[in-house]
Amino acid sequence: MDNKYAAVMELLLEVLNDGKNGGNEIPVGISNRHIHLSQADLDALFGAGYQLTKIKDLSQPGQYACKETLTIAGPKGAIEKVRILGPVRKETQIEVLAGDSFKLGASGAVRMSGDLAGTPGITLIGPKGSVQTKEGLIVAQRHIHMTLADASRLGVKNGDIVDIKVTGPRGGVLSNVAIRANDSSALECHIDTEEANGLGLTSKSTITIVK
Amino acid sequence: MDNKYAAVMELLLEVLNDGKNGGNEIPVGISNRHIHLSQADLDALFGAGYQLTKIKDLSQPGQYACKETLTIAGPKGAIEKVRILGPVRKETQIEVLAGDSFKLGASGAVRMSGDLAGTPGITLIGPKGSVQTKEGLIVAQRHIHMTLADASRLGVKNGDIVDIKVTGPRGGVLSNVAIRANDSSALECHIDTEEANGLGLTSKSTITIVK
Repeated sequence: MDNKYAAVMELLLEVLNDGKNGGNEIPVGISNRHIHLSQADLDALFGAGYQLTKIKDLSQPGQYACKETLTIAGPKGAIEKVRILGPVRKETQIEVLAGDSFKLGASGAVRMSGDLAGTPGITLIGPKGSVQTKEGLIVAQRHIHMTLADASRLGVKNGDIVDIKVTGPRGGVLSNVAIRANDSSALECHIDTEEANGLGLTSKSTITIVK
Repeated sequence: MDNKYAAVMELLLEVLNDGKNGGNEIPVGISNRHIHLSQADLDALFGAGYQLTKIKDLSQPGQYACKETLTIAGPKGAIEKVRILGPVRKETQIEVLAGDSFKLGASGAVRMSGDLAGTPGITLIGPKGSVQTKEGLIVAQRHIHMTLADASRLGVKNGDIVDIKVTGPRGGVLSNVAIRANDSSALECHIDTEEANGLGLTSKSTITIVK
């Protein structure tokens, strides 16, 4: 009886996982514009020794949304209430939407997180001061977080650039999607709100890697 | 001498057109949210017998942007200053961005212009009154306007659904693009601002049809 029960449960799990993450489907995570701050810039914007206040864990382990927001200002205009994500990083990085360039009068470079050399600067305005960053304004390059085990299963490796398939009435194939594989990542394809809306994707959608 | 001149000019034009519209490249036209009004709704919103004021011709012959704007309101919120396009049409049609659904609390159906049966309604607020539309809230299905001669040259026909290729760092392939061919259209691929920003396209970009 126990063996039969176990066999049924195993089969049931397999059926349930098929077409979910047990298959090749990858969940979608959608980012709006947001800011990562260095401690030095956090101090300048909120006061010396300031600590960020976590309000919500994000899907990637250790990452969280903070209570604090900032105004981003460029030569043409400003965008208020841009969320800060924690924890603090080595370098300040401002991830905007491509469409924000019209309002700001400044365009982010399409870059992977951390690849900031030669990107434009922008003004950040906080409750205790403002900062003119020398660089760090980017539009996030779409990418897929995964563990090394996921990468092996999906036939890709860290640093690969792949295409992804999107189904539905606004479906298609998106190119230049970077694979970010390490031991501590949750499987998730990160795109921004404009990419998601343009392709008809929601936070309940999944995509597949095109081989 | 005249013959040589003509031959050189012809060759020059051919070279100049190659990689422009003379080839298979199709210019991109980017639409933001906008409204087409019936005369009855125009009367209700702006006063009986009101005439729209043209401020700018659009690329499609006879179509123009108007001075007049409206507020669109849904159960969750409103969007102000939404441009009206002229001339008036048989039926009112409100073309929003997919991302507008969060602000409005109402989602447009992905539809071609004029295909409004079963689409949601929305509230329009003008200077002289408001209108609750029974239907007409859509997110425009991407499409390519062209003449019948263009269609013949490009190997497609009116009503076809094709894929288009987008190059660049945010490139890829977009599916479900409708061909709209008739005798009075300018060659142009119409997408909205979210599709454009998500794929890295500007009003100077071109795309190609994938065969």
